[in-house]
Amino acid sequence: MITKESIAAELRALQSRICSAIENADGKGNFAVEEWSREGGGGGITRILQQGNVLEKAGVNFSAVHGDLPENIMRALNVSSSQFFATGVSIVMHPNSPMVPIIHMNVRYFELGDGQWWFGGGIDLTPHYVVEEDAAYFHSQLKNVCDKFDLSFYPKYKKWADDYFFIKHRNETRGIGGIFFDRLNEASGHSKEVLFNFLISVGDTFAPVYTELIQRNRNLQYGENEKQWQLIRRGRYVEFNLVYDKGTKFGLDTNGRIESILMSLPETASWKYDFRPVEGSREARTTELLKKDITWAV
Amino acid sequence: MITKESIAAELRALQSRICSAIENADGKGNFAVEEWSREGGGGGITRILQQGNVLEKAGVNFSAVHGDLPENIMRALNVSSSQFFATGVSIVMHPNSPMVPIIHMNVRYFELGDGQWWFGGGIDLTPHYVVEEDAAYFHSQLKNVCDKFDLSFYPKYKKWADDYFFIKHRNETRGIGGIFFDRLNEASGHSKEVLFNFLISVGDTFAPVYTELIQRNRNLQYGENEKQWQLIRRGRYVEFNLVYDKGTKFGLDTNGRIESILMSLPETASWKYDFRPVEGSREARTTELLKKDITWAV
Repeated sequence: MITKESIAAELRALQSRICSAIENADGKGNFAVEEWSREGGGGGITRILQQGNVLEKAGVNFSAVHGDLPENIMRALNVSSSQFFATGVSIVMHPNSPMVPIIHMNVRYFELGDGQWWFGGGIDLTPHYVVEEDAAYFHSQLKNVCDKFDLSFYPKYKKWADDYFFIKHRNETRGIGGIFFDRLNEASGHSKEVLFNFLISVGDTFAPVYTELIQRNRNLQYGENEKQWQLIRRGRYVEFNLVYDKGTKFGLDTNGRIESILMSLPETASWKYDFRPVEGSREARTTELLKKDITWAV
Repeated sequence: MITKESIAAELRALQSRICSAIENADGKGNFAVEEWSREGGGGGITRILQQGNVLEKAGVNFSAVHGDLPENIMRALNVSSSQFFATGVSIVMHPNSPMVPIIHMNVRYFELGDGQWWFGGGIDLTPHYVVEEDAAYFHSQLKNVCDKFDLSFYPKYKKWADDYFFIKHRNETRGIGGIFFDRLNEASGHSKEVLFNFLISVGDTFAPVYTELIQRNRNLQYGENEKQWQLIRRGRYVEFNLVYDKGTKFGLDTNGRIESILMSLPETASWKYDFRPVEGSREARTTELLKKDITWAV
């Protein structure tokens, strides 16, 4: 029998596995451990790695919180029960090198006082420079995991990611997308057990895939120009997270632990007035690829 | 007779006066001029100064736009007419030196198809380091302007600024506040002419007051520590503008000109995980003063 406690315990174990694997990939940085509790109920473990070989700032956050939903969140979720339990692992990693992509993952379980429950999550990749082979690799790996459970998952969740990780006011995607899903429950035709397996499988895809992307790109040369571009792309990342990201909004609205919620923000970011990449440059090429509905995995 | 056209023309002239005065204060930077038009109706003039002596990135934006309000904005404004006209001057200035404060001003006029109209605006100061004499000077100058029109304005609008320029998720004010007002119309007991005079008087307070604050602080020494702190404070500025600022939200929701709306963001900003100032430091003292209801002007 899958209980909320067993889900939380598994997610906590996932956090540990990911931190160990990423420490190995980085080769220098260590994830500090910080346990915290939430006034309204529950708590979490925030693990932050700073100033690593590869990673400048990386957070792997586990939380299991419960309590009363504020009215505005109840409306937004379209639910009638105010008692909630939520557990999940949230990850954002910002590398030192502009040649290594930023990555994000979230896997979560949500349960209401009236017995409703669902899984949600997603992984998406934000390369400062889009490398088409890497994008294809990333999406193929996600497709493989999805296909093991349901052939309809990848196309549906890939599209959902395109729509979700979208910076409307810039008319550009955050990166090359990935998968995004929410409100996944028995209505999918799968049991809670199967869906939970799917969630953990997505979670366990993170470390090997990101390790591969790190290895492919960590030794590439770059200069001041690439570093500047990285800061601008990070600025867009900040815009997405503060303006659109539902997880961030949920955290801020439910009086969550600020430092854990905003660990997703980069160490540094930049906004230049009306910056436009030089025509034909790699920066311009990346901008052209920041759009929805590109088929990366076949 | 005050028409929307005459108000727009006056605000445009205000923009010019402010740019000239601030160029003088800076001594090196010039405000570039960029005219733009908006697809839905109207347009504006964005003036940006970058890499000045004192100012790293400063924007003085004039706009006069009209068209149809989206439904969500109509709801937020609690109005029933969808036809709108809005004109205003918006300013944000980020200095190079952490010893010189960030400043913001906005003065605006709003009119609906059904004849409803109002003025709104505000000025607020965000010192990286709060200097109590400067805060007292800043607030006294704002009080002087307010008192010429209505003795109730300053106390009311000072409190409104404390409440508005507040970063709820940090439980801290953005800076030392200033004044903020909105929906100012005949219900105030003042004629449209008087209120318009008030608006322009607030606008004309900006340049002399900020020039004085620049002169007081521009030659102060600082080091790497102060620069780091400045980047962190700028991060908070980004958080406020992207999460809470109604003008930014209005601009994003009405499909405004992105580069003009986001000119308020600093050239660079930083987020360190769980940064805490050293006890007893100037940074810690500033943090203590970032709260509501401090009496700065008597």
